Amino acid sequence: MESETRTILGVDPGITVTGWAVVAGNANQYRLVDSGCIRPRREGFMGDRLHDIFRGISELCRNFAPREIALEESFCGKNVKTALTIGQARAAVFLAGAEAGVPVFEYPARVVKQAITGHGQAAKRQVGYMAQHLLGLREPLQPEDVSDAAAIALCHLLRQGSTARILEAAR
Amino acid sequence: MESETRTILGVDPGITVTGWAVVAGNANQYRLVDSGCIRPRREGFMGDRLHDIFRGISELCRNFAPREIALEESFCGKNVKTALTIGQARAAVFLAGAEAGVPVFEYPARVVKQAITGHGQAAKRQVGYMAQHLLGLREPLQPEDVSDAAAIALCHLLRQGSTARILEAAR
Repeated sequence: MESETRTILGVDPGITVTGWAVVAGNANQYRLVDSGCIRPRREGFMGDRLHDIFRGISELCRNFAPREIALEESFCGKNVKTALTIGQARAAVFLAGAEAGVPVFEYPARVVKQAITGHGQAAKRQVGYMAQHLLGLREPLQPEDVSDAAAIALCHLLRQGSTARILEAAR
Repeated sequence: MESETRTILGVDPGITVTGWAVVAGNANQYRLVDSGCIRPRREGFMGDRLHDIFRGISELCRNFAPREIALEESFCGKNVKTALTIGQARAAVFLAGAEAGVPVFEYPARVVKQAITGHGQAAKRQVGYMAQHLLGLREPLQPEDVSDAAAIALCHLLRQGSTARILEAAR
């Protein structure tokens, strides 16, 4: 199974910018297929803005037929209002995946950092640099939301997704 | 327009219990068409549990063809983790509405209380009692999630939904 090629959609969800990256390969070799941002309308109702994310992810599922979606577990800080908004943006990804029949896996930030840099406490910039390096890119992925999405997809591939859902279910 | 009959789906979203109530009528007369709870699976991945809410609301939209959905703006307290979960549950309602082409309106709790009881600071029990009374029911609606959903639907009907989205957009 080690050599089986899988296509993974990594997503860094946000109501302003949702970064995404499609990475294909296995734990030994991989490549960036495509990447970009979903930018929900800035004005208007929350429902419409969430729907922009939902439709964007649905379209990516149609276009790239990923086997799995990988998300970073949100860091919400201490702000309740921010947490509510992040929860809503995440749900749009969860639900677009569910409707498309694509399982969604979650990783805590430190697990992503550990998988990409070897250090669970690595700086954000270091994760971006390593994601660029691992994917053999000349330039770092921009903006940071896309770089993070690529790191999450890579993390999922490198870990073979074996423990993520178990971890999530145990919380 | 005052006498036009509208069907409103009121929803009180939660990851354990999502209460719903379908109220039909106008600002002068109205009746409870049906009500109930969506109870997402208790075990398993957040994505699957959110999908249960999403599918439940989608089914209600198909069955009752509501003109609009009304939600109470969430009270999150100070707990970031709770806010994240509430945000996710709310998003499932927003997105099921969006996919079904049913606009979703939001009301702050004090607006619902004001509309139903005449007092923005009314106790939760009082809101339940008045919802029962206004809908001409012999028994109070149970559980509280359903009673709240009925109050939200009623609030929307009584206010004719004229200002809710404007308020929401202005935040």
